[in-house]
Amino acid sequence: MSLQKKPKISVQTIRRLPQYLRIFYNFHAYGRELISSTDLAQQTHLLPIVIKKDLQAVGAPSKRRAGFKVAGTINVIEQFLGWNNLNKAFLIGVGHLGAALLGFGGFKNHGLEIVAAFDTEPDKVGQTIHGVPVYHTAQLTSIIEKQNLKIAVLTLPSSAAQGVTDTLISAGIKAIWNFAPVNLKVPADVVVQKEDISSGLAELCAKLKSK
Amino acid sequence: MSLQKKPKISVQTIRRLPQYLRIFYNFHAYGRELISSTDLAQQTHLLPIVIKKDLQAVGAPSKRRAGFKVAGTINVIEQFLGWNNLNKAFLIGVGHLGAALLGFGGFKNHGLEIVAAFDTEPDKVGQTIHGVPVYHTAQLTSIIEKQNLKIAVLTLPSSAAQGVTDTLISAGIKAIWNFAPVNLKVPADVVVQKEDISSGLAELCAKLKSK
Repeated sequence: MSLQKKPKISVQTIRRLPQYLRIFYNFHAYGRELISSTDLAQQTHLLPIVIKKDLQAVGAPSKRRAGFKVAGTINVIEQFLGWNNLNKAFLIGVGHLGAALLGFGGFKNHGLEIVAAFDTEPDKVGQTIHGVPVYHTAQLTSIIEKQNLKIAVLTLPSSAAQGVTDTLISAGIKAIWNFAPVNLKVPADVVVQKEDISSGLAELCAKLKSK
Repeated sequence: MSLQKKPKISVQTIRRLPQYLRIFYNFHAYGRELISSTDLAQQTHLLPIVIKKDLQAVGAPSKRRAGFKVAGTINVIEQFLGWNNLNKAFLIGVGHLGAALLGFGGFKNHGLEIVAAFDTEPDKVGQTIHGVPVYHTAQLTSIIEKQNLKIAVLTLPSSAAQGVTDTLISAGIKAIWNFAPVNLKVPADVVVQKEDISSGLAELCAKLKSK
């Protein structure tokens, strides 16, 4: 079985994994050992067949007619996403959105530890926001190296995003989570995940129009 | 041609439409009448074949070997999303994320006009944030009816989300853009678009692991 070729996992499946993980964590905390896809369907409002396919794609262990094994499924999802180890991350741009992300307590469950923030505003530099120290952007390269930071979260205005990205790439950063509404130019070995708020709005509006 | 059966449009295509729209607006502002999919590929970093399929799916008008017609394509995308008319929306929960969304100037280009915000904190109620008045949540139903509001943006803590949703449904709201990490229970005629920050992080981590 272990030599079987794994199917390619779709973006849609990947995007649903954190939701499954949260539910499995919950059941685990209550001491449950198995969850059926019917139980999962009730909590996620997804079809049982979708859930089954998603979890089978990442190799979730199951027991015939009883459901997925809780501890084992947590393990394979965490492994798949690399969330069994914490990645040290930093955030650039401490505006409203940046501050909102710093205040989001859930990242540690998602393999991410935000240990530094950067801004250029004198009234922000030197502060500690939700427990994270804010440094001046001029210190970016030296702190990335000193603290061995891996993932950059960009919550900057569009106009500043590409310039900062170039600095990050020189400093060796390989993963950028981009909240600025621009397409960043990066070399092939750097991964970028772009969050575009208007994509969600487009989905909502398309659903509303099709009613 | 107009009687031809339209293909079902995928969520992925819908999520890319705002990005195309921004580029077409830009070209339109510069007086360009046609854009080739090669031009679009350069700006979006998507494959020309993906772009062609997306735009053909919404019926974007084109000229053989010259590209897509700018004004006509803007028109069909806006029509498809219902962004040719402004929908009056309101936001509930003026924390960091709520304030960040109120400060996002781009919604008017996306068919959305946020005209009211709600919170329960005494130091927020009565304020105007980024031009939007903040009311007490107790006034929700009366202001929804008075101002004919259509779309609710939920930037509340999870614990409060379902209770407020029940109030919204009683008040006749048919579209909810949910930023709280919970699955809301709603009747079949209400559309919900859930934004889950951890889905984007899962995508980033999966890309990083596959490197």
